[in-house]
Amino acid sequence: MPNHILLIDCPDETGLVYRVTGVLYRHGCNVVSNNEFVDHDAGQFFMRTEFAGDLDPETIVSELRAALPKSAGIRLADDVPRRIVVMATKEPHCLGDLLIRHEFGDLNSEILAVISNHEMLGELVKKFGVPFHFIRHEGMTRERHEAAVLNQISHYAPEYIVLAKYMRILTPAFVGQFPQRVINIHHSFLPAFTGAGPYRQAFERGVKIIGATAHYVNAGLDTGPIIAQDVIAVDHRHSAADMARAGRDVEQIVLARALRLVFEERVFLSGNRTIIFE
Amino acid sequence: MPNHILLIDCPDETGLVYRVTGVLYRHGCNVVSNNEFVDHDAGQFFMRTEFAGDLDPETIVSELRAALPKSAGIRLADDVPRRIVVMATKEPHCLGDLLIRHEFGDLNSEILAVISNHEMLGELVKKFGVPFHFIRHEGMTRERHEAAVLNQISHYAPEYIVLAKYMRILTPAFVGQFPQRVINIHHSFLPAFTGAGPYRQAFERGVKIIGATAHYVNAGLDTGPIIAQDVIAVDHRHSAADMARAGRDVEQIVLARALRLVFEERVFLSGNRTIIFE
Amino acid sequence: MPNHILLIDCPDETGLVYRVTGVLYRHGCNVVSNNEFVDHDAGQFFMRTEFAGDLDPETIVSELRAALPKSAGIRLADDVPRRIVVMATKEPHCLGDLLIRHEFGDLNSEILAVISNHEMLGELVKKFGVPFHFIRHEGMTRERHEAAVLNQISHYAPEYIVLAKYMRILTPAFVGQFPQRVINIHHSFLPAFTGAGPYRQAFERGVKIIGATAHYVNAGLDTGPIIAQDVIAVDHRHSAADMARAGRDVEQIVLARALRLVFEERVFLSGNRTIIFE
Amino acid sequence: MPNHILLIDCPDETGLVYRVTGVLYRHGCNVVSNNEFVDHDAGQFFMRTEFAGDLDPETIVSELRAALPKSAGIRLADDVPRRIVVMATKEPHCLGDLLIRHEFGDLNSEILAVISNHEMLGELVKKFGVPFHFIRHEGMTRERHEAAVLNQISHYAPEYIVLAKYMRILTPAFVGQFPQRVINIHHSFLPAFTGAGPYRQAFERGVKIIGATAHYVNAGLDTGPIIAQDVIAVDHRHSAADMARAGRDVEQIVLARALRLVFEERVFLSGNRTIIFE
Repeated sequence: MPNHILLIDCPDETGLVYRVTGVLYRHGCNVVSNNEFVDHDAGQFFMRTEFAGDLDPETIVSELRAALPKSAGIRLADDVPRRIVVMATKEPHCLGDLLIRHEFGDLNSEILAVISNHEMLGELVKKFGVPFHFIRHEGMTRERHEAAVLNQISHYAPEYIVLAKYMRILTPAFVGQFPQRVINIHHSFLPAFTGAGPYRQAFERGVKIIGATAHYVNAGLDTGPIIAQDVIAVDHRHSAADMARAGRDVEQIVLARALRLVFEERVFLSGNRTIIFE
Repeated sequence: MPNHILLIDCPDETGLVYRVTGVLYRHGCNVVSNNEFVDHDAGQFFMRTEFAGDLDPETIVSELRAALPKSAGIRLADDVPRRIVVMATKEPHCLGDLLIRHEFGDLNSEILAVISNHEMLGELVKKFGVPFHFIRHEGMTRERHEAAVLNQISHYAPEYIVLAKYMRILTPAFVGQFPQRVINIHHSFLPAFTGAGPYRQAFERGVKIIGATAHYVNAGLDTGPIIAQDVIAVDHRHSAADMARAGRDVEQIVLARALRLVFEERVFLSGNRTIIFE
Repeated sequence: MPNHILLIDCPDETGLVYRVTGVLYRHGCNVVSNNEFVDHDAGQFFMRTEFAGDLDPETIVSELRAALPKSAGIRLADDVPRRIVVMATKEPHCLGDLLIRHEFGDLNSEILAVISNHEMLGELVKKFGVPFHFIRHEGMTRERHEAAVLNQISHYAPEYIVLAKYMRILTPAFVGQFPQRVINIHHSFLPAFTGAGPYRQAFERGVKIIGATAHYVNAGLDTGPIIAQDVIAVDHRHSAADMARAGRDVEQIVLARALRLVFEERVFLSGNRTIIFE
Repeated sequence: MPNHILLIDCPDETGLVYRVTGVLYRHGCNVVSNNEFVDHDAGQFFMRTEFAGDLDPETIVSELRAALPKSAGIRLADDVPRRIVVMATKEPHCLGDLLIRHEFGDLNSEILAVISNHEMLGELVKKFGVPFHFIRHEGMTRERHEAAVLNQISHYAPEYIVLAKYMRILTPAFVGQFPQRVINIHHSFLPAFTGAGPYRQAFERGVKIIGATAHYVNAGLDTGPIIAQDVIAVDHRHSAADMARAGRDVEQIVLARALRLVFEERVFLSGNRTIIFE
């Protein structure tokens, strides 16, 4: 029997779990795991249920719709690989890590293509039989460059766009086309050190711990909902370049972890905060 | 309305969540938080529900008993401070931390008394108005010493016994009187370095990380179910004594964290493993 | 033989280690540990040497002065407890931790007194036989309140002032009287979340890791040189209050760790960054 | 001017730093960084000095030999890439990570070849233009298999052999040919869970943290000197397979970190413990 993932997001009220599990019970579904959370501040209820069963999704969803508040978000997802396009600039570590995971089926997604504003990662990408598109930004306005990128992306119709150290800021217009579908790895422990040169900033501030943050991209600069973060200790012996080197390991791990959470449908949004059912 | 905690532990089968939430729903209970977990290896279902409601506990439990498999463990706990006795030897850090938390209502428990096989912590304990019992082990058989300790404990009828760096091994006979009710902090990252002198062992093995482990005490030596662990980095500059000093910080944090989890009724056992709903 | 700590800080040039160790060698000093660091950006050399020897400090220092560049900072410290005054407001965890460490000789310092702008910690402090001074800020200008605090401090002539969750901002005029001698614990992972309510800020930003920072206080708000930092993972289940509770453990550990580093003379400043020889 | 690394290891006595820096000073060497450590238990002195200078290595070493105790280990290394052979079995994550780092010059070494007892990693290795040797172990005695591996290794004359999840135990005879030159990544937090199936062991013990350990291989099973360790939190929701997946990230990071330390000549041995100058 195939595995299904049910995702519910609605205003909190009494009996929600009872109602949802009632529908599943009547269809003889076998619940594999179940997670609920109530955001008491926002008065919002979140539920993720993995279950097995040979069922008609439309029937289930329509029964759930009848059982839940009108404004409920109800989604029935299948546990299949997500279709993604990766964007990168010059650094190979995050992209390389994704390619290795992809090659060995450990990324829960299919990398449809890699787009870069530099040529240098092309050789790496091609080793793995993945299309590589070099779209030069030099000499182009930001708008024209993004239009070219968008055009290329449109051929692949990806579910998600992954920024694996893509070092250009995307305009709100670009990001607005993919709400909650662009995931970025930022090389600092946000909200510390937004923008350019976070390791240089971290060095100058003299911090003893550096980090990386994977987040959904929204219209602001490094202000999107945080999916995953991790850190590593540093000390005065680390130059800004040493911090960058040490940080690369954290970046690739954090990005891969965030992608797994998103691709396994474990991430809800409540305002600008993520609710993550691990 | 008072807060209740419902704890269920039974063989897994279809519809358990539906049945439990049905009982709560019919009584108009307002679920604050809900956690379930199925241990698929053991075929066991675990559920912890915090809910508010003015209700008759006996009615709820008897309805749940009717709705669930016969062998189900069903417990309705109230969120009140646990009654504990602390045992210690010579080191003040864990005990001191507990006393401070206790004094300021941050331990979710009442320290009824402290029992020690040495005199030196008495002055500290008395500062906080807590009874201190010095029960010398020197010149006594282990059995006679434990009998004296047991006798003293019996006057307090504690729910839990907390070993806050009590440096003597308790016999299975002693421990057997308090199943899942004796909590110990061991100064290593178990199962590494069981028994005496774990920091000396860690130093000699040349590890780069040391840790501490809070666990339920069972009949074996440092083999009981693990509740909480944490670690700290060390290097060649740390002598065994330096490791012990650095480790003390981890010990006191890990013990306090484990006690909070236990006292808030967040810990289930599945065989020798803990299931913890944070 | 007594243990001495030699601290040197001067513009980098060739042969500095050779010259310093030459002086110590000629006096028959037995070096216990030796640390050097060159801040290549700043062109500055730092050295900390622990050595044993029955010697005349003035002779050693004057020979070193002759051997080193004119602008060299040379200091010969003894490994004796530092004299400190602690300031706190209402929260007991950091203060309590310091009092326990102090009581058992684990703080490498003598707490001369505790000063607070609230009364409620007085009972705790007095248990440990430490003078407690309640200096109310209500109804006073900041200047008058600080004058009263300064007056009280002056009676003790402390080497360091430790802000153990003292929740008022000190004026530059106050801080300027104790350059590099006021140490604060801030309840965030600086530079994220400066100022008031960092846990509330962290909650709202939806971070997955929170932290604490011990730093020297300078004229800016939470901008002083960082001595120690640590972090703890959180998730969507943590309210701002839960973050505050979890963070308290980190705060007390980080403050104690920073004090140990400072009191053992392990901390140099290079601009706004600390160089720490552990 | 080229960068040199001087490595000294000798019985501790007074004036060692003075004597070493004297030699360097007289040759006009510019010390970039300097680290010393005295293992007081073992009475052994360790020193690593990075310096720049256009010098005759033989002269320097012979002057140092004259200045230091007879039994002193003195080595002058150049900061050039190490020549390594990697051995692996079926898992691609550590090997893939090394290949990516190698491809982009981030490993401080040249991967001369990869040897495996399975065929399946061959395709990955060949993408990177690195020779891949499949040496089947099935149907061969351990001795014959190792002889075939040794024969293949001998063609490359590597400085180090890196076991990147090579899942067969090497005999003491094999390891004895490469003292302190075989580096392994073990998928547990040693000394916990030696031998086979550490994640299964960790799952069964119910630990809350898992880890990975990079170590030199010696004649014992997972008993060699530890170079680097790191950990990651887990909980009851992790099956043994989930732990293995989570652990893979730690393994690849820890192995890469250990290799950097070794290849940059930062690791000394003192008995079975490593002294690491970061």
